[in-house]
Amino acid sequence: MRSYKYIQEIRVRYSETDQMGYVYYGVYASYFEVTRVEAMRNLGVSYKELELSGIMMPVSEYSIKYKRPCKYDELLRIEVVIKEMPAARIRFYYSTFNEQNELANEAYTELFFMDAHKQRPVRAPEMLTNALDNYFHE
Amino acid sequence: MRSYKYIQEIRVRYSETDQMGYVYYGVYASYFEVTRVEAMRNLGVSYKELELSGIMMPVSEYSIKYKRPCKYDELLRIEVVIKEMPAARIRFYYSTFNEQNELANEAYTELFFMDAHKQRPVRAPEMLTNALDNYFHE
Amino acid sequence: MRSYKYIQEIRVRYSETDQMGYVYYGVYASYFEVTRVEAMRNLGVSYKELELSGIMMPVSEYSIKYKRPCKYDELLRIEVVIKEMPAARIRFYYSTFNEQNELANEAYTELFFMDAHKQRPVRAPEMLTNALDNYFHE
Amino acid sequence: MRSYKYIQEIRVRYSETDQMGYVYYGVYASYFEVTRVEAMRNLGVSYKELELSGIMMPVSEYSIKYKRPCKYDELLRIEVVIKEMPAARIRFYYSTFNEQNELANEAYTELFFMDAHKQRPVRAPEMLTNALDNYFHE
Repeated sequence: MRSYKYIQEIRVRYSETDQMGYVYYGVYASYFEVTRVEAMRNLGVSYKELELSGIMMPVSEYSIKYKRPCKYDELLRIEVVIKEMPAARIRFYYSTFNEQNELANEAYTELFFMDAHKQRPVRAPEMLTNALDNYFHE
Repeated sequence: MRSYKYIQEIRVRYSETDQMGYVYYGVYASYFEVTRVEAMRNLGVSYKELELSGIMMPVSEYSIKYKRPCKYDELLRIEVVIKEMPAARIRFYYSTFNEQNELANEAYTELFFMDAHKQRPVRAPEMLTNALDNYFHE
Repeated sequence: MRSYKYIQEIRVRYSETDQMGYVYYGVYASYFEVTRVEAMRNLGVSYKELELSGIMMPVSEYSIKYKRPCKYDELLRIEVVIKEMPAARIRFYYSTFNEQNELANEAYTELFFMDAHKQRPVRAPEMLTNALDNYFHE
Repeated sequence: MRSYKYIQEIRVRYSETDQMGYVYYGVYASYFEVTRVEAMRNLGVSYKELELSGIMMPVSEYSIKYKRPCKYDELLRIEVVIKEMPAARIRFYYSTFNEQNELANEAYTELFFMDAHKQRPVRAPEMLTNALDNYFHE
């Protein structure tokens, strides 16, 4: 395997729909946040603990192409992939599938690592790169 | 005058509607937040500055009765009243009116004052009680 | 048993925190929505299907008392109870517990049943009252 | 003038911050929604009326690059530009400036026009293209 992949299921809440009857286009950002945090937890890296240790991960870029709307109460399947070993930045690529297993949207987010105390960028923490190593170099 | 009253207009965003075609019932909490912050600003008290000075105002109680739904793009009029001089706690009473000037809902929030550093309750800051004095004791 | 009780776990998302470092006070409304929908699903009643059949359940009243703040990434346990057989209206009572099993808040929502086509209130659907009967009359 | 430009001011709500102390990265989507709706209203096109007439405008693409975080209570200035006459699709380009007039982020959204009844794409309504004509062909 030359990449790390994780799958997260998320059920659409009523609060996340809009009067078009679809998931509001701005909601997916929070779905992807949940997905990448769980993907990191699965690697043994708690984002909560990372922040408590002084490393924050602000988003520097976000892009999404919507193919199909998602609807209330659907159990979405979001696949996230890390394709490159993170250095100063890390990219997560997402694909959202609806209950009929159709591709609903594709997106990526780019985040960087910031020393919260010094308020300046730092390299990816070893805890994260070491965990990813198992997926990238076998 | 024996109370302080302030009026805030808020236009309903698309993101705030749900598939019923109404404003989602949980959204009003943020409308009331905007309303009380602007009511305080009108008294000369910036909530942002208050927090920077170390005083936070967490909400301890919130209650709302919905009479009529509000809809997308409506310019709502929210009236807020402070009826009692705050001591350990402060209550804001809200009435939301739709574009036809019909009462859409009534609510109140109770907040307290917290020293963010010591993480314990404190009395209402003088800046706030002094400003309210003009409305309560004339 | 003279009531129906259901327990829902919800993990706090980063999007749901505010700069106080707590879950924003308006977010719980959506947690309670998820909780009551899952409580109904457990009774065999899909809210999604109910809406498709022409019955909507708007919220008429919501009240919450905050005891302790909840924090990012906490796995909250929300207990919901239906104490009275619904007729024109239904009340859900909620208790939110944090990861230390401390009571974070208590709340209730009152909803009514509306014929979406005729846009007027109707009685609780039999599908729901029949399912609750098993819990209320044994 | 070969494009249409509009400026919208939006004040950051407390609900829109996260525990990093910044505006949550997913919130800007709703700021841009407000901005493009007001830009259209300024052209004489009410999005609400457009939907009532049976034309919806779902978002097909959204992309944003974050330069600087925005903070609670800041009065943001969002500039939106339409650079090309819409046909099947319309692009809005956004630039968000903070209170120090620094560029906070740049983004665009692509939307299409959909006949809500037939559930299929249609061309941009004449009401919109006629209004834009004044800006594009003088």
